[in-house]
Amino acid sequence: MTHISKNQVKFVRSLGQKKQRDLEGLFLSEGEKCTLEMLKRFEPLMIISKEPIAALAGSEAELLEATDTEIEQMSQLRTPQGVIGVFRRPKSMALPSAEDQLLLALDGVQDPGNLGTIIRTADWFGITDIVCSRDTADCWNPKVVQATMGALARVRVHYTNLFDFIGENRGCSSASMRCTMPVYGTLLDGRNMYEESAIPQKRNGIIVMGNEGNGISAEVRSLITHPLYIPSYPADRETSESLNVAIATAVVLSEFRR
Amino acid sequence: MTHISKNQVKFVRSLGQKKQRDLEGLFLSEGEKCTLEMLKRFEPLMIISKEPIAALAGSEAELLEATDTEIEQMSQLRTPQGVIGVFRRPKSMALPSAEDQLLLALDGVQDPGNLGTIIRTADWFGITDIVCSRDTADCWNPKVVQATMGALARVRVHYTNLFDFIGENRGCSSASMRCTMPVYGTLLDGRNMYEESAIPQKRNGIIVMGNEGNGISAEVRSLITHPLYIPSYPADRETSESLNVAIATAVVLSEFRR
Repeated sequence: MTHISKNQVKFVRSLGQKKQRDLEGLFLSEGEKCTLEMLKRFEPLMIISKEPIAALAGSEAELLEATDTEIEQMSQLRTPQGVIGVFRRPKSMALPSAEDQLLLALDGVQDPGNLGTIIRTADWFGITDIVCSRDTADCWNPKVVQATMGALARVRVHYTNLFDFIGENRGCSSASMRCTMPVYGTLLDGRNMYEESAIPQKRNGIIVMGNEGNGISAEVRSLITHPLYIPSYPADRETSESLNVAIATAVVLSEFRR
Repeated sequence: MTHISKNQVKFVRSLGQKKQRDLEGLFLSEGEKCTLEMLKRFEPLMIISKEPIAALAGSEAELLEATDTEIEQMSQLRTPQGVIGVFRRPKSMALPSAEDQLLLALDGVQDPGNLGTIIRTADWFGITDIVCSRDTADCWNPKVVQATMGALARVRVHYTNLFDFIGENRGCSSASMRCTMPVYGTLLDGRNMYEESAIPQKRNGIIVMGNEGNGISAEVRSLITHPLYIPSYPADRETSESLNVAIATAVVLSEFRR
């Protein structure tokens, strides 16, 4: 194994910044397990570790050796995991259609831990595409990659104008002008999710989840055809004001997939 | 408002350490909203803020003024919230019985963010008592208090020997020697939770959730009467190996309360 150069350390470290990641079209994975998962989908630029990784014998990826100190310098996590992968992002991905599948749409989710957990949970419940508003956290942020626990290799995350995307997918522009695509969203004045008779079809459409503090933006809210509410238990008891957004996403997805 | 003294700043700061919190029987809340929530259940020793808090006018709590710098020195969070409350913990709480309610038991949950989110979620789904193994994260850790978003004022968190607690609650020591109390737990070889006919009663018993990496310990696992499994979707697709423990807790609680 070639030892990593000072310039390479500096370069990898710079990928902790979104601006630099976007410019280079790269992202980092940390830890052996996560890095091996990323190899299943993404093309590696280099993989850096203290010791050779048995599972990478024969791999075409450039393998570089680094000391603990160098790995600490490059790591974006509080507890460096000893292995860092640098991967090329997919060049461009066509936006998915909600016509024959269930999509998840995120409207301004801010916390990287929440986003990563949502990607991991979406993977579990068979969501293969997540469409995010442009102000949602960056899925290539090392903390997000870490929290997905490898799920980023299976779930495609798109960034676009969410209002336009949902509007176009609802099918309102079709000849019949009927909006037939269900757009679900959790709203405080939504209908009890467990009793909602609209869910039975639940094989296609869009589920929208909103920002941690403010929920779904007014603009996107206007496109929701099926407002849902996760009832607290028992209904008349004083309780927390809301659920964490990753938790709410999981509860809704479980209800759709059960 | 009296200005906080240097010794008080030092004292409050020391409560970031578990040892010191245990010794003093105190804990910290940060942020105005969270601190006001804590006031509903806990007795305050002092409440520290930069400016007077309108909602505390007439309160009997000792109100202290502090500068931004002093608050930063005392804060245990990356982003100090401007208000810090110091509260007395409840002296001693009798362990709850699972006979007429659903209890949540945590076996070695390590991450403070996960524990806080679980407490918040439990509150939403009407769980009033959580029983933790002694190696579960400390619920009085400022990061946990923060992540509960005030739910710690409604949910009682107990620490004990979980094996003994569940064993006693199962009712095996009763004259009939029949273990009638259901003990649920998510295990990889459990039964499909959505189809599990044992859930219908679901008004009492214990739901056990395990450690982030290792799940439920072998000892506690031996006490589970109803092993459950949250199926991924679709069943034959390659997916993440597991769900985050807070997510799994939410999905199970939603299924019990729906």
